[in-house]
Amino acid sequence: MKTILIVGIGTGNPEHLTVQAINALNRADVLFIPDKGAGKGDLAELRREIVARYVTNPAGRTVEYGVPKRDAANPDYGAGVDDWHAALAGRFEALLADVPDGGACAFLVWGDPGLYDSTIRIIERLGTRFAVEIIPGITAIQALTAAHGIALNRIGEPVHITTGRRLGPVHDDTVVMLDGQTAFLNADPDLDIFWGAYLGTPDQITIAGRLGDVRDEIVATRKAARERHGWIMDTYLLRKRD
Amino acid sequence: MKTILIVGIGTGNPEHLTVQAINALNRADVLFIPDKGAGKGDLAELRREIVARYVTNPAGRTVEYGVPKRDAANPDYGAGVDDWHAALAGRFEALLADVPDGGACAFLVWGDPGLYDSTIRIIERLGTRFAVEIIPGITAIQALTAAHGIALNRIGEPVHITTGRRLGPVHDDTVVMLDGQTAFLNADPDLDIFWGAYLGTPDQITIAGRLGDVRDEIVATRKAARERHGWIMDTYLLRKRD
Repeated sequence: MKTILIVGIGTGNPEHLTVQAINALNRADVLFIPDKGAGKGDLAELRREIVARYVTNPAGRTVEYGVPKRDAANPDYGAGVDDWHAALAGRFEALLADVPDGGACAFLVWGDPGLYDSTIRIIERLGTRFAVEIIPGITAIQALTAAHGIALNRIGEPVHITTGRRLGPVHDDTVVMLDGQTAFLNADPDLDIFWGAYLGTPDQITIAGRLGDVRDEIVATRKAARERHGWIMDTYLLRKRD
Repeated sequence: MKTILIVGIGTGNPEHLTVQAINALNRADVLFIPDKGAGKGDLAELRREIVARYVTNPAGRTVEYGVPKRDAANPDYGAGVDDWHAALAGRFEALLADVPDGGACAFLVWGDPGLYDSTIRIIERLGTRFAVEIIPGITAIQALTAAHGIALNRIGEPVHITTGRRLGPVHDDTVVMLDGQTAFLNADPDLDIFWGAYLGTPDQITIAGRLGDVRDEIVATRKAARERHGWIMDTYLLRKRD
């Protein structure tokens, strides 16, 4: 049986790696690095840097693979994701054929494999022929609250985590991830926002304040940063004022 | 100015420590280890093990301190917590007096300092005389989903994080933390539960299934484990079946 290690690498700071993650990467005969195409070279480069810094096992070799694009034009979001996962499962199947029998391979996953990442689900599509181990990693949510010096929850209160697509009226403290459409523009301007991009990296940007006061600054900062880097990953917390 | 490092140490597996956390612990002149009293010796011992394993800075010395108990009998939960935080702030003030001027100290915080932990809030009570840095750590939520081999969220769907005290009807996928009263007994028996205790440690226990089918097993397992260890930390995810 081959072992698949799904390893959370944190959000761009190589020091986000846990000892468990470093040990897992050093068990792998093959380390898979996704290439998400033009403009996202930074993300592949960060993974290469992590391998160079922490992998001391001479048997570990790196294999880069192209990631097919999700058809964002598909009006049925679920069907678009399903097609995309099927394409990725095919790609993974081919990659896994090159892992030696009884050997191990590692997928380096941004953040934590359990939070808004597809790797676990795609591997599940391949059936039960593989031993799978999941290694947690620091998420953008944790990097966000650490950067702002705040706790995620208020005392004994709940927290909601959602996507830009699904953001509705804010009751509980709410974290928004994967927000390509700046959904905060439609939220109550009297909320507080704690926003961050490139969290954990030297390019980290944070802005906090009353949403109505800082939202234009966030939109402008976000646009300029995206043009400069070719990509952006940002996340934010919305909270009713005390 | 003195620097306070609030360092997330994960949930009991010393390998949960990030490289950033290890580097932070090695910057500290004083490392604070809480002693939560009889029956919770394992938790102090784990922190001592982390210091012994990772702290190589000869200048770093360990100081243990007693943690006052929260008055759980106070019918006003908020007031009870407020009194407890005030008592802890007084304790911290005394501890910080022994940190050299211009030096650094570290608080070793279970899980992540941003998630259901009071350290950030207690340090805030001390005002702005200190430089504070927060180092994220692996949470019980991440250890739970990794142990069960599942993603926390479903594709594009939200996640709710709450406490046993606040658990109501479950709509979105819901994580329950700090549940001393087995609140899952009042939840819809047709939900799926993914339960875990001592997550990340050699004593880790996991149970998953339809709530109505496994809840008695969880109650019995939880009770026996609590008696054996003298303490328990458990958490779970409730999810509607597909």
